Amino acid sequence: MTTVDGTVNTPDVVAVLGAGSWGTTFAKVLADAAGATGSERSIRIWGRRAEVVEQINSSHRNEQYLKDIELPVSVTASTDVEEVLKDATLVVLAVPAQSLRPQLGEWKPFLAPDAVVVSLMKGLELGTDARMSEVIAQELGLPASRVAVVSGPNLAMEIAREQPTASVVACSDADTAAAIALCCTAPYFRPYTSTDVVGVEIGGIVKNVIALAVGICEGRQMGDNTKASVITRGLAETSRLALALGGEAHTMAGLAGLGDLVATCSSALSRNHTAGRLLGEGLSLDQVAEHMTQTAEGIKSGPAVHELAGKLNVEMPITAAVVAVLEGRMSVDDLGPRLLARALKSEGDY
Amino acid sequence: MTTVDGTVNTPDVVAVLGAGSWGTTFAKVLADAAGATGSERSIRIWGRRAEVVEQINSSHRNEQYLKDIELPVSVTASTDVEEVLKDATLVVLAVPAQSLRPQLGEWKPFLAPDAVVVSLMKGLELGTDARMSEVIAQELGLPASRVAVVSGPNLAMEIAREQPTASVVACSDADTAAAIALCCTAPYFRPYTSTDVVGVEIGGIVKNVIALAVGICEGRQMGDNTKASVITRGLAETSRLALALGGEAHTMAGLAGLGDLVATCSSALSRNHTAGRLLGEGLSLDQVAEHMTQTAEGIKSGPAVHELAGKLNVEMPITAAVVAVLEGRMSVDDLGPRLLARALKSEGDY
Repeated sequence: MTTVDGTVNTPDVVAVLGAGSWGTTFAKVLADAAGATGSERSIRIWGRRAEVVEQINSSHRNEQYLKDIELPVSVTASTDVEEVLKDATLVVLAVPAQSLRPQLGEWKPFLAPDAVVVSLMKGLELGTDARMSEVIAQELGLPASRVAVVSGPNLAMEIAREQPTASVVACSDADTAAAIALCCTAPYFRPYTSTDVVGVEIGGIVKNVIALAVGICEGRQMGDNTKASVITRGLAETSRLALALGGEAHTMAGLAGLGDLVATCSSALSRNHTAGRLLGEGLSLDQVAEHMTQTAEGIKSGPAVHELAGKLNVEMPITAAVVAVLEGRMSVDDLGPRLLARALKSEGDY
Repeated sequence: MTTVDGTVNTPDVVAVLGAGSWGTTFAKVLADAAGATGSERSIRIWGRRAEVVEQINSSHRNEQYLKDIELPVSVTASTDVEEVLKDATLVVLAVPAQSLRPQLGEWKPFLAPDAVVVSLMKGLELGTDARMSEVIAQELGLPASRVAVVSGPNLAMEIAREQPTASVVACSDADTAAAIALCCTAPYFRPYTSTDVVGVEIGGIVKNVIALAVGICEGRQMGDNTKASVITRGLAETSRLALALGGEAHTMAGLAGLGDLVATCSSALSRNHTAGRLLGEGLSLDQVAEHMTQTAEGIKSGPAVHELAGKLNVEMPITAAVVAVLEGRMSVDDLGPRLLARALKSEGDY
């Protein structure tokens, strides 16, 4: 997508692998971005399920995930990944985090030789504790300059409704980040650029775990003071982990750190927030899973984050408490008070 | 309150000047804190209005501000400031920011010689752009080691209901901060300490202005993504101002910065958030004032913050936009899009 000398080519074909709410919404953003500049661009979504693909092609909708939102005509879909990836110099990945690695093996043979790959995913791989950009680089054999991530305060349904949103495109190569940002700048979607891939990814991963904690507090009828304290300390422990991995503090204070965390913890649209609230109200993990149509990523990533923090000797008391609740070692009644009941000390130390 | 060699004496008498929601709630916190440790302590509230004072003394309630919350019996009230201040070695101030300076002149003769003064106020003085701790030190002729501030994610009504909350006590003298923290540690109120008075005060002041912006976005039906972006950039501009005044970045990432901002911007209990929402829904400033029983401090402090930022050459676009709306130079329809419509650039620069 970028040439060797750094010149930027906007892609004529973009592949979006994954037809869930965020993948489909991002396909709409890419189409509207091209439309706003008068560019010709095909956006092809790959989906696993024939009925979803069929609905996108025939009625320009993805009703299960985006209700009555109408997709631009330049967005088409297919269950055939080879067809979707053909000539696509920008490839966007939006599949469940834990299934990414095996899928990449199947997709690799069809990837265009100069493709840039963008992750929309917010999870940490169980077992390896690898971030999605790491899994992509490893499995596809790509240099860091051709792997990017997009993350920010981006509740998919609001963006699908074209409510104005800012976001962050991160790539170790600033030119690649800028080229992708240009591709997805729609009237209602404003991307900023960053070279801090680690910080942007860690912000997106850990916020799902913190949102579970805030949801649990809400389910226990705790107030906005308590929730704000959990968000504040949650960002502090997220930042500690990001810094330990080489991320930057100002990323955590920005849209992909604080912004995403606040949006997720405020919104009734957030799956992780909702899952936490249901846990707080006394439902079991199985009951929560039955109640929800899409995965709450924090339930899966929480234990991986906790493990990674342990390896790096990073103190993450909120994550530890959430994992203890998920594993049945702590009751939801104990979580809120436990998070506040620490000895008096200087705030700088915590 | 603290002796010269740093030993801490807990005060037998505390004066709280101001009988609004936060002053009355903090009196309850001080009483419950003493109760929890078995200390004998009198908390005396000074109030301007005889009927409020009478109700506190006769029925242990302050119904206008705290509805049916019952105050501890150790909390009494008077309209006679000399009586309230007598022997009070800890004096807590909770009056409207713009009326503080003239009132201090009247109170000064009655202040105990070794009193420590704590500000609960979150405003900037119009005309001088002075913070409340500065006004206190100037008017009472006190050294910085005897002036402190308390601020954090502290919606008064939630604390009055004893929902768990953390907060920050800041004083340039760490021993004084620790002594005050000890005085107000109740089972539901956890103070941390800080020596960054500037950062803690600026966080509390500017969040009221940002809450107006978030409220306006909400009144215009904008979503959680937009509000989270405004909160994120709002904290960034708050931090720029605090740093320019000598405050510390980690304070802004803590309970008195991020925590207070998130609580205020999330809560229907916040006056500034509510005032913003009403403005966003199309009410005029006069109509908003009629609608509300207590002042939305951000409406008064906004122009002072804007002026201070101008003097220091600090870029505060959200504050500037809010002031433009308050002064009728910008419509509420233009505020949200204007805040997001900035040129694509690296997030680090913003």
